[in-house]
Amino acid sequence: MSRSSTGKGATRTRRRGAENYDRLDRQIIALLQHDGRMSNSAIARELGLAEATVRRRIGRLLDSGTLRVVAVPSPYTVGLTLSAIIGVSCELARLDEVAQTISGFIETRYLGYSTGSFDLMIEAFFYSHQHLLDFLTKKIAAIDGVTGTETAIILKVAKFSFEWELPLEDQLA
Amino acid sequence: MSRSSTGKGATRTRRRGAENYDRLDRQIIALLQHDGRMSNSAIARELGLAEATVRRRIGRLLDSGTLRVVAVPSPYTVGLTLSAIIGVSCELARLDEVAQTISGFIETRYLGYSTGSFDLMIEAFFYSHQHLLDFLTKKIAAIDGVTGTETAIILKVAKFSFEWELPLEDQLA
Amino acid sequence: MSRSSTGKGATRTRRRGAENYDRLDRQIIALLQHDGRMSNSAIARELGLAEATVRRRIGRLLDSGTLRVVAVPSPYTVGLTLSAIIGVSCELARLDEVAQTISGFIETRYLGYSTGSFDLMIEAFFYSHQHLLDFLTKKIAAIDGVTGTETAIILKVAKFSFEWELPLEDQLA
Amino acid sequence: MSRSSTGKGATRTRRRGAENYDRLDRQIIALLQHDGRMSNSAIARELGLAEATVRRRIGRLLDSGTLRVVAVPSPYTVGLTLSAIIGVSCELARLDEVAQTISGFIETRYLGYSTGSFDLMIEAFFYSHQHLLDFLTKKIAAIDGVTGTETAIILKVAKFSFEWELPLEDQLA
Amino acid sequence: MSRSSTGKGATRTRRRGAENYDRLDRQIIALLQHDGRMSNSAIARELGLAEATVRRRIGRLLDSGTLRVVAVPSPYTVGLTLSAIIGVSCELARLDEVAQTISGFIETRYLGYSTGSFDLMIEAFFYSHQHLLDFLTKKIAAIDGVTGTETAIILKVAKFSFEWELPLEDQLA
Amino acid sequence: MSRSSTGKGATRTRRRGAENYDRLDRQIIALLQHDGRMSNSAIARELGLAEATVRRRIGRLLDSGTLRVVAVPSPYTVGLTLSAIIGVSCELARLDEVAQTISGFIETRYLGYSTGSFDLMIEAFFYSHQHLLDFLTKKIAAIDGVTGTETAIILKVAKFSFEWELPLEDQLA
Amino acid sequence: MSRSSTGKGATRTRRRGAENYDRLDRQIIALLQHDGRMSNSAIARELGLAEATVRRRIGRLLDSGTLRVVAVPSPYTVGLTLSAIIGVSCELARLDEVAQTISGFIETRYLGYSTGSFDLMIEAFFYSHQHLLDFLTKKIAAIDGVTGTETAIILKVAKFSFEWELPLEDQLA
Amino acid sequence: MSRSSTGKGATRTRRRGAENYDRLDRQIIALLQHDGRMSNSAIARELGLAEATVRRRIGRLLDSGTLRVVAVPSPYTVGLTLSAIIGVSCELARLDEVAQTISGFIETRYLGYSTGSFDLMIEAFFYSHQHLLDFLTKKIAAIDGVTGTETAIILKVAKFSFEWELPLEDQLA
Repeated sequence: MSRSSTGKGATRTRRRGAENYDRLDRQIIALLQHDGRMSNSAIARELGLAEATVRRRIGRLLDSGTLRVVAVPSPYTVGLTLSAIIGVSCELARLDEVAQTISGFIETRYLGYSTGSFDLMIEAFFYSHQHLLDFLTKKIAAIDGVTGTETAIILKVAKFSFEWELPLEDQLA
Repeated sequence: MSRSSTGKGATRTRRRGAENYDRLDRQIIALLQHDGRMSNSAIARELGLAEATVRRRIGRLLDSGTLRVVAVPSPYTVGLTLSAIIGVSCELARLDEVAQTISGFIETRYLGYSTGSFDLMIEAFFYSHQHLLDFLTKKIAAIDGVTGTETAIILKVAKFSFEWELPLEDQLA
Repeated sequence: MSRSSTGKGATRTRRRGAENYDRLDRQIIALLQHDGRMSNSAIARELGLAEATVRRRIGRLLDSGTLRVVAVPSPYTVGLTLSAIIGVSCELARLDEVAQTISGFIETRYLGYSTGSFDLMIEAFFYSHQHLLDFLTKKIAAIDGVTGTETAIILKVAKFSFEWELPLEDQLA
Repeated sequence: MSRSSTGKGATRTRRRGAENYDRLDRQIIALLQHDGRMSNSAIARELGLAEATVRRRIGRLLDSGTLRVVAVPSPYTVGLTLSAIIGVSCELARLDEVAQTISGFIETRYLGYSTGSFDLMIEAFFYSHQHLLDFLTKKIAAIDGVTGTETAIILKVAKFSFEWELPLEDQLA
Repeated sequence: MSRSSTGKGATRTRRRGAENYDRLDRQIIALLQHDGRMSNSAIARELGLAEATVRRRIGRLLDSGTLRVVAVPSPYTVGLTLSAIIGVSCELARLDEVAQTISGFIETRYLGYSTGSFDLMIEAFFYSHQHLLDFLTKKIAAIDGVTGTETAIILKVAKFSFEWELPLEDQLA
Repeated sequence: MSRSSTGKGATRTRRRGAENYDRLDRQIIALLQHDGRMSNSAIARELGLAEATVRRRIGRLLDSGTLRVVAVPSPYTVGLTLSAIIGVSCELARLDEVAQTISGFIETRYLGYSTGSFDLMIEAFFYSHQHLLDFLTKKIAAIDGVTGTETAIILKVAKFSFEWELPLEDQLA
Repeated sequence: MSRSSTGKGATRTRRRGAENYDRLDRQIIALLQHDGRMSNSAIARELGLAEATVRRRIGRLLDSGTLRVVAVPSPYTVGLTLSAIIGVSCELARLDEVAQTISGFIETRYLGYSTGSFDLMIEAFFYSHQHLLDFLTKKIAAIDGVTGTETAIILKVAKFSFEWELPLEDQLA
Repeated sequence: MSRSSTGKGATRTRRRGAENYDRLDRQIIALLQHDGRMSNSAIARELGLAEATVRRRIGRLLDSGTLRVVAVPSPYTVGLTLSAIIGVSCELARLDEVAQTISGFIETRYLGYSTGSFDLMIEAFFYSHQHLLDFLTKKIAAIDGVTGTETAIILKVAKFSFEWELPLEDQLA
């Protein structure tokens, strides 16, 4: 008997996930990751497909939620050049409230509930050191239930979330 | 005399950033954040503008790098339902090498160089606990120069990176 | 759209789990948690059931793996009165090897692969402080790939694993 | 003169413990660890003993507390597939109260009072990440005197408590 | 059944300990804690006892190891005015060797094997900050197997070990 | 110019300390560390000195505070066989109060004010794990201003404070 | 496209900084770092320049803020021989207040707002261990909003702030 | 008898320190802290003293080392606008070597040997995040014996070292 807490079910889930797209889908997605506003006809030309095929496949990927095509504004070009990961500890009874408030702050790009040393992990962007200090001492500090924070400055970003690509089966261990 | 390490220069940067877009740009961006493939004419109809205006403004935002419209594949719908933030410590002399290798892993969505307890911070997605274990013991462990890792499981994501919106001047402290 | 990494699927899993047993099963299990060697006829008498019913239900619970009836030797009565939880850090490439070796030690009652500060978490029992020191300096220290340990002494056990009971639906949040 | 805090007394305790069972007892226990409901006559047949001997020895082991034969329900098969070790810090004056409340939670399998970084160590099982979050934010957070928690997810269990075997003299350092 | 790992046995141990001395012994000990070279006749006079009684009781306390009368040289008056507690981490396989070497250093007053963050805890005395640095960088650093140290300066001593008194039964919780 | 905060003054202090005793003093002290109640005449015989010399030297050492001869009761022989080092954090405004209260506890052998992770460091002795728990939850927890504790169990003592010897000049780095 | 958060702008800043002074300025500064009260005519003689050139260059360096010539009193020679770095945690809403109060203390030489484990980092000087204890328990402890401190004693200073020299272009990586 | 490790001697040191300067000296120092190049005659005019008095007093303060008048170049105005405190751990046997190498780096303004979590504490200034990364991965990483670093970014400096003033007797606790 296997002791793993992730037995047959996990394997099934993985196969089911993998069925959601094929190599052709991936080629279409790759073009859209480069330019999300490329027209169906341009994609069809590029890949030697019928435009209807492209339209149908994109439609299916969007409908299933496998793909979103979205505008991603850049924090850097609007002057938000300082990025930080902030661990937040809080009274557990107020965890949802605290998370909701922090999600609403315009500086917050990402917010996850976490195990380990902190209850919440934030990725946020700032104009300057003073802006970060104001965020901590005026916005975060004003939330009932926050008991502590620890800030790590991100000195350089090596890979952005939107650069992530769908895995091929053989790219996974 | 101000002692702040972020004096007049920072303020100038901020203003320059803020000049990159106006409320009309933001309305266009908001529609594209909802549906990046909405046509220029549909946007023009929605906002009561000429299609040429929409095309010109989107072009300018894309050219300046303020906006990207991109396909964002969902890890969840392809079965990658387990998300983790992994702090990595490494020999500093190999920091760039280590970062480059980890960026190349298909599981890695985000990788930043960090101050504080860890040298690198990874956001990654997995099919299962076993997949995460394999990532740590086979992929990360095989990189020369990695001296330690600490994994925090993300139990729930409250805000995703691509949901972030450009700030209005009055939304910042 | 829900952002939770534990959406509908999790709810289905829970219901499926809950279908595995009913209140009658739980009454039988409760008697067996008190005395695993109680005869089917004694259980039937106690609960006012036919012996065949008891036999069939126990058989189904054992076959599905929902229940095991097992001998649990007591560390305390054989003189192993010192209990400790030991966090182990190791070279990730050797995690499985290290876990296998530690599992084989007679002192080890429980061993889990862990996220957070340590890679492995051990529960173990000892005759004395000297026995614990010998375990650390002779057995654990002899394993290639172990890079650190941290021991917490368990001063008192408030609930043992085998005292755990199957939940009723309404006992869960 | 020995400086050890575990001198002659400890050695005596160990010998006294070891007298509680012999190799024959261990053979019987081994069968019961495999199947706690194996009948005395089947055990007698298997080991070539008189049934009365088996009955008498099992009776002595149970009476002395060296052995319990108990039903151990499986968290996994009822859908509780997520296991975690949770360190809890609390106001020391309320330590007993807090321990008692947490012991009563159906999710809690094990609870020990601990030295080191945390005051209490919990092993608990959950249906999902959301269930774990609810446990922390609704059940644990509602207990007066709890001042902090840190959760480690158990990615895989390598050895379960009920698999532990009584040591032979020569298996100990 | 009690779950405590410190049940009846512990209570017996305590009573047995308490039988080792009575209030009269404690009065004699108190005088010797003030001046260990007070003569038996002076003690007898002070307490209104026969000198033979005093001699017999002191002899019994010394023989049983309950009491030692010893010269305690003062680090302070010989210029060793800087006291520190140093936690030492080391390779577990060399723990005994490391402990033996550190015990032999003239600066070391106390050395204990420890659970928790460090493997060994040292109390030591120094002439100056430079002396402490030399101790760490020349003596401790030269020991094979030491992997780390953390020094806490003792700013003031509120109670010295030799000031400790034997407890009365009713002084314990 | 020397940057060290421990310049010439420290060297002078050290020499002044070293002048407090010579090799003959050390021989007398060594005998008294073995048996503090050895008579002056016995010491004189052992070292081939006049009794008056011994008396005068011991008198000078005691008067200068270089030496105390004291009764040191043994925690072990009275059943206090569990030793622990407890780090205590507290509100700084109450540090002296807290230290005074803890010094008064019969379990406390040593108490120092500390830099680093904890404000106070305690060495204390206990009859049992339950006794230690009672000390923490009833005695320490009842002190206003204590904000946290962390307990390390001492598994073995390699060198006791009263075994420390006065250094010879050439024993120091 | 570069991902670095410190792109072209940073390079420009660096060049702009480097234009503030040349090798001749550095020669003048070096003399003033040795003796800030050296007369313009003495500097001119030393470097073979016209006194007017020296006066003009010093004036420009002072006006631009590149250089200050200031009296630096020595903590050591007035008996403040104990130096410490103190990390302070506080309620974020009161961070500015706390910083202002601590800046005003005569013991404080340096105070920075910090990311990481502590909110503020202090460098301070003291007459003695007791003086440091008084600073912590009477001055720091009396400030509303301080939630914790951790003190590291500086055993030796290897480089003082005022010894720092302006970099040459080729001294930087 | 006092237990403090800082008894009468400390008090004497303090008084001796305080004798080094009087209120008139402090008035002169205050003017020089504002402008270190103010002429003796200007100081004399300002304070209503004879120029010879000013010259004699400044001479005595400089000769005793109580005061230095030095050029302090500003890191900020030359573009070094990013300040960090970096804790460094190293092999203790190489502590002096490591300290010497780091002291020589142009980025290093301050370097102290430390107790606690780190062996060395650096204050350093950088042009940019990339410059800090280069310092860590190329300069620090190249030093034999460095085993770890942890960087805290200084977001704002509230008090600079050279702003520190000599204490008046009544300004100290």
